[in-house]
Amino acid sequence: MPSDPAARAGAILEIDLGAIVANWRLLAKKAAPAACAAVVKANGYGLGAAPVARALAAEGCRRFFVATLDEGIALRGELGAEPEIAVFNGPLPGSAAEFVAARLTPVLNDPDQIETWERVATPDQRAAMIHIDTGLARLGLSPAEFETCLETIRALDITALISHLACAEDPAHPLNALQRERFIAARRRLPGVKASLAASSGICLGRRFRFDAVRPGAALYGVNPLPGRPNPMRAAVRLGAKILQLRKIDSGESVGYGAAHIMDGPGLLATAAIGYADGWPRSLSHRGCGWLAGTRVPLLGRVSMDLATFDVSAAAPAELYPGNTIELIGDHYGVDDAAADAATIGYEILTALGSRYHRVYHEPPTESLLAG
Amino acid sequence: MPSDPAARAGAILEIDLGAIVANWRLLAKKAAPAACAAVVKANGYGLGAAPVARALAAEGCRRFFVATLDEGIALRGELGAEPEIAVFNGPLPGSAAEFVAARLTPVLNDPDQIETWERVATPDQRAAMIHIDTGLARLGLSPAEFETCLETIRALDITALISHLACAEDPAHPLNALQRERFIAARRRLPGVKASLAASSGICLGRRFRFDAVRPGAALYGVNPLPGRPNPMRAAVRLGAKILQLRKIDSGESVGYGAAHIMDGPGLLATAAIGYADGWPRSLSHRGCGWLAGTRVPLLGRVSMDLATFDVSAAAPAELYPGNTIELIGDHYGVDDAAADAATIGYEILTALGSRYHRVYHEPPTESLLAG
Repeated sequence: MPSDPAARAGAILEIDLGAIVANWRLLAKKAAPAACAAVVKANGYGLGAAPVARALAAEGCRRFFVATLDEGIALRGELGAEPEIAVFNGPLPGSAAEFVAARLTPVLNDPDQIETWERVATPDQRAAMIHIDTGLARLGLSPAEFETCLETIRALDITALISHLACAEDPAHPLNALQRERFIAARRRLPGVKASLAASSGICLGRRFRFDAVRPGAALYGVNPLPGRPNPMRAAVRLGAKILQLRKIDSGESVGYGAAHIMDGPGLLATAAIGYADGWPRSLSHRGCGWLAGTRVPLLGRVSMDLATFDVSAAAPAELYPGNTIELIGDHYGVDDAAADAATIGYEILTALGSRYHRVYHEPPTESLLAG
Repeated sequence: MPSDPAARAGAILEIDLGAIVANWRLLAKKAAPAACAAVVKANGYGLGAAPVARALAAEGCRRFFVATLDEGIALRGELGAEPEIAVFNGPLPGSAAEFVAARLTPVLNDPDQIETWERVATPDQRAAMIHIDTGLARLGLSPAEFETCLETIRALDITALISHLACAEDPAHPLNALQRERFIAARRRLPGVKASLAASSGICLGRRFRFDAVRPGAALYGVNPLPGRPNPMRAAVRLGAKILQLRKIDSGESVGYGAAHIMDGPGLLATAAIGYADGWPRSLSHRGCGWLAGTRVPLLGRVSMDLATFDVSAAAPAELYPGNTIELIGDHYGVDDAAADAATIGYEILTALGSRYHRVYHEPPTESLLAG
C-alpha cells in the first residue's frame, strides 16, 4: 500500500528556504561591512533549525546563535566543526563542560558564568561572548559587574561583546540611543573585541547600531522588523489546512464550543483539520480567517483543539470539497496578520507552529549556492 | 564526560502517570456501567500519547481516541493489535486504505467518508464509528444526511454512534438537553448500536448523558471538567524553569521588551529559562507568576521567546541562586490558573507544552496495575 504523508496530513506547512537565504543576503548586504550571523534558536523560530542553518551555512553564514545548550549540541551535529555556534543562555550550573565538548561558544551573562567558564574552558576551547545589560534587564552583566569581571574577561578568548535592545521595533524610543551609549562605553573597556548590538529590528535603526556584527532572527523568517512600515523581507512560510467537512447552516444556529457564534443568516461552513494543538492560536477565535482560492473565509466561533470552522459562503462552489486546502498563512494573510488578529507578535505565531503538520521544505535555487 | 539531560535543560516538565491513571479510574467508576475510553489526541494533550496510553492500557482501558490518522498509526505501533483506536477526523480523501492497514476505527463524519469506508473496508476490518452533529456544527452528519446514509451505515460494523456536546462545561446551558434529545432520536434509528455522547465535562452532567460509553480527555490530564466548581481531578503535570540570572533593579527602571514594565520601587529580578517558544504563552505577560519555595513571584514585563523575568524580591534569600527552580505549574498554580491568567483554557496550556523541556515521567505505583 502506498503511504503518502501529504495525503495523511490534515495541514501542510511549506517552508521556503530560498526566501530565508534571500532574507539573510539582504540583511547581510544592508549590514556590511558588519558581519551577519543568523539566529536559529527555538528550532529556527519553529521552521527547523537544521535545514535553515544548513541552507545559510551553504550561503556563507559562519556564525549561528541558539538559546540553549541542547539546541547547540544538536546544531553542532548538523553543521560540523567549522561554524561558530553561540548559546545565548550560557552555561547553567553543572553544564559548562558540555560546552567545551561540543565546541560551543557560551554567552556569559553574569559573574558566575564568567568564573565557571574561566575554570572549565580548555586551552583550545576558550571562546566566549560577553553579554552586558544596557537596559533590557533580562540577561547580561550590570555595569558594576562588568567592571569587577574585566580582568577575567580579558584573559578569555572573547569573540564578541554583545547587548540586546529593548525597543528596537520603535525607532523613536529614547531607550535605543541610551542603550547604544552604554554599549559604546563598555566597548571602550575591551579594546579590539568585536561588538554586536543589533538583532533584526536593530539592523534597521541604521549604521550606528550595527557595530562589527549583527544577528538577525525574526526577519530571516519573514517577520517585519519595523511594524507599521512596508515589510522588506520575503515571506518564508505557507500554511494550509484541509477541509474535512462542509455543512449548510441556518440562520440562528450556533457554531462551535460554547455556542459562542450565532449565525445571522444561512451559510455554508467548512471544518478544517487545524486547531490550537497545532499552534493555531485559540485567541484567533471569532477573529481569524483563511483564504480559499483567493476568497477570504472568516473563522467562525472558537478554534478547537484539532479543528477550526470557516464561513465559506462566499467561496467559489468548485472549491468546496473535502481535501481542498484553506490557506492560513500565505500571500493574502501573513504571519504578522495572524499575529495581529491573535493579539500577539509574529515571533510567537512562528514558534508555536505545530508538530502535526506535514512539512515541505523548498530548497534555495542552485544559483544562490554559487553566489555564496 | 557525564552528560545529564536534567542539568542541561532550562526547564523540566514532570508528568505524573499515576495521577492520569487515578483520574481515569475515578471517571470510569463514575461512568459505570458505561465503558470508559481515553482520548489521547494532540500527543495526549501535550503530555505524551505513548506513555499515557501505555499506562492506561495497563490499567484496563480498551479504547483510545486520537484526532488524526498519523496519531492513530503511531499509537497502534505503541499499543499492539488489541485496543480499539478510533480517529475523530475520519479518512481524508486518499487515506482510507491506511486505516485498514493500521486497523484503526475511523469516525465517519459525513456521507463521503461513509461511502469511502463502505468501499475500502475489508471483511475483517469494517469497524467504524458514526458521528452525528447534534448542535456543535463542526463535524458529524446532519439529521438529513444520517437518514440518507442509514442503509449503508447498517451494513458496516458500527462500534459506536457518537456526538459531541458544545456547552457541557456549563450544566445550565439549554443546548445540553437539546443535543441529548437529538442524540436519542438518532440512536433509535440504529438499534443495538452502542452510543457515546459524553467527554470529560459531559460525564459530570449526570447519568443521562453517559449512555453506553464515555470518552474523557482533558479531565484525565487534570483540567477541571466543571470550571468554577471544586476540581475532582488530580493534577498531572509540574513545570519548573531554572533561574539563569539574578539582578538588582532600581525604582523607575524598565524591564523587558518594549520597556513595558517600569519598577515602582527597587527590586530583585530572576530571569528564568522559559519563554513562549516553550509554549509558556506570551499572553501571560504582566499577569502570570511563578512560585519559589512557596513564595509567589510575579512575572514582570513581557514573556520573551526563551526567557521570562520574575520579581523575586519577596523570596527567601537562600533560594536565590542560578539553577534553582521557579515552579510554574504545581501545587500553588495549576494548569487552569495559568489558563485564566493567559485568557485561554487549560486545554491550550497543555497542548502548547513545548519540546525543549526535559520530560520526567513518574510511573503509576505498582498496586494500580494489580487493581486494574
